[in-house]
Amino acid sequence: MNSFGTLFKVTLYGESHQDAIGIVIDGVKPGLKINWDDVEGDLAKRRPGAVGTTPRVEKDKLEVTSGIFNEYTTGSPLHIMIRNENVISKDYSHLKSQPRPGHADFVASMKYQGFHDYRGGGRFSGRLTAPLVVAGSIAKQMLPFEFSHELIQVGSLTDMSQLDTYLREVHNQGESVGGIVEVRVKNMIVGLGEPMFEKLDAKIGQMMFSIPAVKGVEIGTGFSGATLYGSEFNDVYEDETGKTLTNHSGGVSGGISNGNDLVVKVFVKPTSSIGKAQSSFNLESKQKQSFEIGGRHDTAIVRRVGIVLENALAIVLADLYLWSKIYK
Amino acid sequence: MNSFGTLFKVTLYGESHQDAIGIVIDGVKPGLKINWDDVEGDLAKRRPGAVGTTPRVEKDKLEVTSGIFNEYTTGSPLHIMIRNENVISKDYSHLKSQPRPGHADFVASMKYQGFHDYRGGGRFSGRLTAPLVVAGSIAKQMLPFEFSHELIQVGSLTDMSQLDTYLREVHNQGESVGGIVEVRVKNMIVGLGEPMFEKLDAKIGQMMFSIPAVKGVEIGTGFSGATLYGSEFNDVYEDETGKTLTNHSGGVSGGISNGNDLVVKVFVKPTSSIGKAQSSFNLESKQKQSFEIGGRHDTAIVRRVGIVLENALAIVLADLYLWSKIYK
Amino acid sequence: MNSFGTLFKVTLYGESHQDAIGIVIDGVKPGLKINWDDVEGDLAKRRPGAVGTTPRVEKDKLEVTSGIFNEYTTGSPLHIMIRNENVISKDYSHLKSQPRPGHADFVASMKYQGFHDYRGGGRFSGRLTAPLVVAGSIAKQMLPFEFSHELIQVGSLTDMSQLDTYLREVHNQGESVGGIVEVRVKNMIVGLGEPMFEKLDAKIGQMMFSIPAVKGVEIGTGFSGATLYGSEFNDVYEDETGKTLTNHSGGVSGGISNGNDLVVKVFVKPTSSIGKAQSSFNLESKQKQSFEIGGRHDTAIVRRVGIVLENALAIVLADLYLWSKIYK
Amino acid sequence: MNSFGTLFKVTLYGESHQDAIGIVIDGVKPGLKINWDDVEGDLAKRRPGAVGTTPRVEKDKLEVTSGIFNEYTTGSPLHIMIRNENVISKDYSHLKSQPRPGHADFVASMKYQGFHDYRGGGRFSGRLTAPLVVAGSIAKQMLPFEFSHELIQVGSLTDMSQLDTYLREVHNQGESVGGIVEVRVKNMIVGLGEPMFEKLDAKIGQMMFSIPAVKGVEIGTGFSGATLYGSEFNDVYEDETGKTLTNHSGGVSGGISNGNDLVVKVFVKPTSSIGKAQSSFNLESKQKQSFEIGGRHDTAIVRRVGIVLENALAIVLADLYLWSKIYK
Repeated sequence: MNSFGTLFKVTLYGESHQDAIGIVIDGVKPGLKINWDDVEGDLAKRRPGAVGTTPRVEKDKLEVTSGIFNEYTTGSPLHIMIRNENVISKDYSHLKSQPRPGHADFVASMKYQGFHDYRGGGRFSGRLTAPLVVAGSIAKQMLPFEFSHELIQVGSLTDMSQLDTYLREVHNQGESVGGIVEVRVKNMIVGLGEPMFEKLDAKIGQMMFSIPAVKGVEIGTGFSGATLYGSEFNDVYEDETGKTLTNHSGGVSGGISNGNDLVVKVFVKPTSSIGKAQSSFNLESKQKQSFEIGGRHDTAIVRRVGIVLENALAIVLADLYLWSKIYK
Repeated sequence: MNSFGTLFKVTLYGESHQDAIGIVIDGVKPGLKINWDDVEGDLAKRRPGAVGTTPRVEKDKLEVTSGIFNEYTTGSPLHIMIRNENVISKDYSHLKSQPRPGHADFVASMKYQGFHDYRGGGRFSGRLTAPLVVAGSIAKQMLPFEFSHELIQVGSLTDMSQLDTYLREVHNQGESVGGIVEVRVKNMIVGLGEPMFEKLDAKIGQMMFSIPAVKGVEIGTGFSGATLYGSEFNDVYEDETGKTLTNHSGGVSGGISNGNDLVVKVFVKPTSSIGKAQSSFNLESKQKQSFEIGGRHDTAIVRRVGIVLENALAIVLADLYLWSKIYK
Repeated sequence: MNSFGTLFKVTLYGESHQDAIGIVIDGVKPGLKINWDDVEGDLAKRRPGAVGTTPRVEKDKLEVTSGIFNEYTTGSPLHIMIRNENVISKDYSHLKSQPRPGHADFVASMKYQGFHDYRGGGRFSGRLTAPLVVAGSIAKQMLPFEFSHELIQVGSLTDMSQLDTYLREVHNQGESVGGIVEVRVKNMIVGLGEPMFEKLDAKIGQMMFSIPAVKGVEIGTGFSGATLYGSEFNDVYEDETGKTLTNHSGGVSGGISNGNDLVVKVFVKPTSSIGKAQSSFNLESKQKQSFEIGGRHDTAIVRRVGIVLENALAIVLADLYLWSKIYK
Repeated sequence: MNSFGTLFKVTLYGESHQDAIGIVIDGVKPGLKINWDDVEGDLAKRRPGAVGTTPRVEKDKLEVTSGIFNEYTTGSPLHIMIRNENVISKDYSHLKSQPRPGHADFVASMKYQGFHDYRGGGRFSGRLTAPLVVAGSIAKQMLPFEFSHELIQVGSLTDMSQLDTYLREVHNQGESVGGIVEVRVKNMIVGLGEPMFEKLDAKIGQMMFSIPAVKGVEIGTGFSGATLYGSEFNDVYEDETGKTLTNHSGGVSGGISNGNDLVVKVFVKPTSSIGKAQSSFNLESKQKQSFEIGGRHDTAIVRRVGIVLENALAIVLADLYLWSKIYK
């Protein structure tokens, strides 16, 4: 449920407004000297601040309670905790009667029989992605690959030089937007992925859809490749390393990395919390009624989610990378 | 690796040109009287025959060796085997030196150090999806939901009444095409999915990308929703059952089914095997050279894959459905 | 449920009196040329024939349907099936009303709501251990260790040279006996086992208790060590390889192999089926009544179970051996 | 590795002398009002103080950071952390060159390439069992069964009224002793356990051997039953509930609970740390040499381990109990 991976395995816990969130990371190789500046750097990329992101700024101070000795990893699980500070104890109890469209309020209430912590989205909060960023940042330090991500669409905008202007406008309308992020891994090797159900793309699919607000995942060209002929879509091998000129396959063949850039495109839906009034069913009044979501929220969560997706991908790769060693 | 699921669990085996393929199904409830006509009906939908599908027709005769007693399931694992008949023992050894673009030949050769069975794609063959269809068909019989699928795009074609004509034309050009399939589940209940990593959409992502040729997965509206505002994308609740008028979320909120139709859209790439000549690197001659893929293959595998996706989805749901019972 | 292991993983299926039993083996390294004579040799050790073993002799003909190509393993899962031949279709239906003491009849009936296949013990039959022997035999071929087992007690007998005489006597009394088997692995290496819950001894415990009739497991000296002082029980290191003169720890320290012989002792209970009449509750007559178990059965199943335990141990070691490679 | 269970799942972390140890508990049903006094009561039973136990007394203050809202469990994972206080920062570096007999020092050094935290046994410390006690205590609150444990042998002593006197004597000799604990569960139901590899006894075996110092596990009568005949060992059913007069099977038939008392006997080896001098190989001097283990340690860890075993068993049962609901 809250664990992902087999050999490199993360276990998440926490809810938005309780004491802490955190992660247990199993399978970090002994003797790794973690570069904590890199970890902090990745967390900073996730942190709000830019136009279109929430003003809830948390320091995300990491408490590493276990798994490090004399600055090196010990081979025991790492446990890293982040206290939930800057939690405004405003009244959230209206969420019990007024489930917000797009949020998990309604399903959580039904599934957990009303006992869920609804404050700030509880366990469904994007806040849970902070420990994932940490784990992924460590994963990247175990891997010989090169990770990056970029925003390729925000709302109807594809020219990112106009992003701040565009998001201010969206915000002023009381609206939100989603978008598309491309994550890319260079210097890949051939052979990551374990058919039939631990294929590279299968594990990427599982991981990406685990991240809040993700509603679509493509490997390589994806859906727009529907109009191509086979002769156009097929990536032709250029040499004995498996290098191809085109990369419609996104670096994955038969569920196994083929050595070309791994390219994953992810659709992140428009932020569910918006400024303008919405009308939705109220469980108490038993009728649809208008309401406004107050509080702090992102106009475009997609702007911050890139590093989450990148690092989540690193977790997938770290697991399959260790797996690829077993017959060596 | 070859197992999927926790409580309803399938374990696949087999390769295209060896003796048999098959599946072990764990977690079928005791006392189920399987409707084998329904299973055969689903297999028939996968079987070729229509324009644009391969002429390799297999009878897919099921051998159920275990798990049934006096016509009812016993609670022990079912084992169902399908012999590989109609295997033409042509010479496939050229595939060792000439990996086919779009296929897994190259990565399999590297990963399995040349020991893989390359005949007919080996374990990467679409043939492995037949036992998956069987397991999914049984899964559907354990579930109170209603499953269907439809082709919504094939190549550049979106009007399916023209499909035969279109595919003949594609075939005559020595080409292939891919497409998009929508799988839909009606009569859903609220509550399927176990955050954080066994979310409904996460498990769907893992399963769908496990199926050969799948390169994109959307839940609900998906990528095209990037241009919508939050107020447009949010599905508004109409009543206390969680019913919404729009269904951009595809029936999944916070990774948990919300009771609305579950809608999954899957992009299947153009069939990698095409009639016309291709030029790709040859590992023996150490240069790019032209070659033709002979043999029988589909012009549009997407035409047959719908029932595979539908039944694969049923496997996901059967697992999470059992999971949803544990606190009852 | 029916799977064991992570990297070297077996999935069992089958019931005593249905068409077949079998096993799917995942994680066999590609390029292994399996010595089938060794596999057959191990199966022969399990097969009855000696004094005190059942006259139900099966040929155990192996059908290897998948995973081998040109005599070498391909890296895909092996599937090996054994048909249930020599099944006497006698009437077993009395078992529905008269659960046999020591057998699983009663619990199976309750757990599977009466739908279980009760013939010959169904899935609880010792017959299911045949595929396990096969898988273990293959596991041994992947490992650099040396496996053996020996009977150290049968009933009250500890001098095995008298075994045939003793068992004839037990049989003539209409009785059965259990015993203790020691499995030993030489040429071990240091480092197998993954704390906290995939420790070497933990996985051995899980595996051994999975085998029918096993009711006790010791690593090394075990229970009789309760009377020793710490200074006596502690194994003292002799050199830098970790070699110790005594081996009370049975080759496991902190759940990890320490390079000394791995020694596992297993208690196998007296065969539940006995010749003489027993009195037990009858579910139909609603009272205790006398009955006799007809059919073929072992006087001392412990005589045949040694190779099962040895090979089951090999499965455990194969999994942890692959695991030990991941940081190489 | 550090996780146990499927539906009720615990993930452990921590090392003896780092900041904290802790546990993530997945699968606690929503709406449980945990009785923390019971949890503290169980922890108190594990805490030293009695004759023969270490003077390292920790307060074991629990920090529950997640999973509780308004005093009830939310359905999200619980995270419970215990700070390592009372850690004497003495010099442990001699352990790098002088691995202690019976401890994991040697194997840990080899397996983790010298990067393990050797202070106080690191992750192999019995201290890690404190969070396990907490999780088991919560598990017991989800279950309708009645748990208990008792010491049945300590060293050569079987009359526990003499225990304090005996242990003082052992301590004065600079020695340690082990012993045997019996854990018992009353009010069991029929049907817990999932053949073939998630059998009740198999999971008990895995769990018990995961606990430091455990070197033997019996279900019911165990090894001493080797001398019994089948007619003596078989438990005869008295009525339709499956009640038996004898309980040689320890409440488990075919790997499934049969409704009678679940009886598990566990052998705990003599504490490895002893007062008197030992001679063992020194990795630096390259010869055997005499040394003394200073510090605080238990004369008879077995005296404190009972509650650990009892609660560990509860974790196993909670998992299988949830599993038993899936077809309801």
